[in-house]
Amino acid sequence: MQVNIERIKQDILALAEIGRNQADRGIYRMAFTDADMEGKRWLQDQIAAADLPCNVDGAANVSATLDGISDGPRMIVGSHIDTVPCAGALDGTLGVVVGLECLRSMRENGIQPEQTIELIAFSDEEGRFGGMFGSHSICGLITPDKLATMKDLDGILLQEEMERQGFDPLKALDAAREPESIAAYAELHIEQGPVLDRMNKSVGIVDEITGLFTWSVWLRGEANHAGTTPMDMRNDAFMGLADFAHEIPRILEENGSDRSRATIGKAQILPGAANTVPGLVEFSLDCRDTSEEKLDELATAFRKALSAIARRRSLMFEFEQKSYLHPVQCSLPLVEKFCKHATALGLDYHRMHSGAAHDAQIMGRMVPTGMIFVPSKGGQSHSPAEWTAWSDIEAGANLMLQTLQDFG
Amino acid sequence: MQVNIERIKQDILALAEIGRNQADRGIYRMAFTDADMEGKRWLQDQIAAADLPCNVDGAANVSATLDGISDGPRMIVGSHIDTVPCAGALDGTLGVVVGLECLRSMRENGIQPEQTIELIAFSDEEGRFGGMFGSHSICGLITPDKLATMKDLDGILLQEEMERQGFDPLKALDAAREPESIAAYAELHIEQGPVLDRMNKSVGIVDEITGLFTWSVWLRGEANHAGTTPMDMRNDAFMGLADFAHEIPRILEENGSDRSRATIGKAQILPGAANTVPGLVEFSLDCRDTSEEKLDELATAFRKALSAIARRRSLMFEFEQKSYLHPVQCSLPLVEKFCKHATALGLDYHRMHSGAAHDAQIMGRMVPTGMIFVPSKGGQSHSPAEWTAWSDIEAGANLMLQTLQDFG
Repeated sequence: MQVNIERIKQDILALAEIGRNQADRGIYRMAFTDADMEGKRWLQDQIAAADLPCNVDGAANVSATLDGISDGPRMIVGSHIDTVPCAGALDGTLGVVVGLECLRSMRENGIQPEQTIELIAFSDEEGRFGGMFGSHSICGLITPDKLATMKDLDGILLQEEMERQGFDPLKALDAAREPESIAAYAELHIEQGPVLDRMNKSVGIVDEITGLFTWSVWLRGEANHAGTTPMDMRNDAFMGLADFAHEIPRILEENGSDRSRATIGKAQILPGAANTVPGLVEFSLDCRDTSEEKLDELATAFRKALSAIARRRSLMFEFEQKSYLHPVQCSLPLVEKFCKHATALGLDYHRMHSGAAHDAQIMGRMVPTGMIFVPSKGGQSHSPAEWTAWSDIEAGANLMLQTLQDFG
Repeated sequence: MQVNIERIKQDILALAEIGRNQADRGIYRMAFTDADMEGKRWLQDQIAAADLPCNVDGAANVSATLDGISDGPRMIVGSHIDTVPCAGALDGTLGVVVGLECLRSMRENGIQPEQTIELIAFSDEEGRFGGMFGSHSICGLITPDKLATMKDLDGILLQEEMERQGFDPLKALDAAREPESIAAYAELHIEQGPVLDRMNKSVGIVDEITGLFTWSVWLRGEANHAGTTPMDMRNDAFMGLADFAHEIPRILEENGSDRSRATIGKAQILPGAANTVPGLVEFSLDCRDTSEEKLDELATAFRKALSAIARRRSLMFEFEQKSYLHPVQCSLPLVEKFCKHATALGLDYHRMHSGAAHDAQIMGRMVPTGMIFVPSKGGQSHSPAEWTAWSDIEAGANLMLQTLQDFG
């Protein structure tokens, strides 16, 4: 039994027209917008057409169920169909469409799995209101307090937007599941990076999902005239930042692993005049690794480097941790099942980690979790240029289908 | 004969109230604003009160004359009373007040110099409409074309603003002087840097005025996901900028002099998200030296470094020269006169260069030029914190007075 790639194509292309902006060809299906709701209704129609029971929970997660023989813990397969602004056609959508196709194929072929398999399209993975709202709700991580304060960049409250779309926000609290009710969680996603594409592999099997911390860092020196201030009398905040950037490769080599990443993605230099020595820089540091211990060691090394640079250049150094995500180890039995079936299918797979956060990261804190990656052409994602060869999508979808069948 | 420091104090403090903002204590006497015009009228009143002939030329330069015995080329002493927004009380104002005090003292003491001495307060040194408009006009460097296009940051045309203040803009062309009519130009200015203050010297004698070039530089890489893009698959534009900043000390040591300065004062990092590897940086490079040859060598070294970094990191490198000012050698006879009188006055002086541009830089292209610096407390300037001890002001003013008397 195989997935029907033509049906996957049709679904992807159909969903790609929902929320599409004809001017930039980007897809705008941000959580709880009308386009997102239209996408969810479209998904419910497909589930109904496949003759599968459909449900929408209090967090607006849409699910389809293929009942198993036993009433033991269920297998969940999922992802999300909400998008960033100006998105491409795949991202989370692909995982939802593939999950649906797996259930559809099994049902058509009269296969009743040992355990119930449930497809879930999670709400607001992309973060209009903070991100991973659907998986947080399922894992019981949403509180009334959070619900009342979550808002988007325009200041619109999540609960207003939910009410506008006909949902009772407080019912999101009822979406929580018992961990015992779930056997495992599997998600197929595009890699969103260049690794598989450059290695020419059609499938990645994820064994760890990265943890991360982001800092805001301030280096405060003294703004001075660029002409009258000798080089050795400056407290140049920007040169402090440059020194720090220069230390990043060393810090990663000394304290990190080949799964470490560190990025300065944002920096503001003040006062910001060509003829003025910068008196203040504020910049972001995004640091990721799949090991909590490595993350701690990296944080220590960054702090030491920044302190030393600040002392050397007579700058004031401050930082604030803006976010922290724990790394997640994928379930070894699930990873091994993916590998076994990939080999059986003759797929050239690569065992790798996920450098991006996914619903799997939230689900993985509660239940055994695994992910399949398919290559992103040129490493592109979150843009209309995002793409994956249909043959790779087919390979990934068949791997998911075989693995789901093997459960129970 | 000495200057009257009390009169200098009074004048400085009186001018400091014209254009003063009571909220931030800053002075706002930007060129051709009502406050600037009020300052110029105040100056004309002081010139009249000192019984000196007063003139306002077509560029709104205000001047006072102390007639000499001979009708040979005249000595000019000057600076400017326009300010940057939120300025301090000294900057150019001090040079004008000191010049006036020198003429006043000589006149009171019945001293008729051999050569005519003229004090000029130049228009728009600070650059509301580009900078050094008054000295450019005197040097014949203003054209009708320039006049018609010069505007401030709000888009207000210089000629509109001149008309509003009762000037015929085209008459600025008539302000040009014959180089043969001027024997030399002398200017007293605050240092605007920390050197004299740190050395505890009361007077600086300027032997060179820095030249400079400013560049806009672009490094273009590829914006990528900070989590999914391995460190060795990035074309991180910001890391290219950090590499370049790191090379600056080496480039100055290898190709510059102790009068070289290089500053990255402004940088924009795009797209500018914490979780995105920067795809583009645009930054400014301000480079100064008193030697044209060194400036050329520095420019070549910067270009080589940027090209090499761009190749190494697979970035595109472009740059554009935004401005170029030739360095100016001060007149050796004038410098030696300043040194001789400083020694005679028992002043602990420091021979130095000017890292900032002044009207003297423009005048110096046409006539023999020299400058006296007085210390800036803490190196502060262009801020209400700008200050110089009255004793240092008195020392600098007496040095100017002695040197002016010595001409002819």
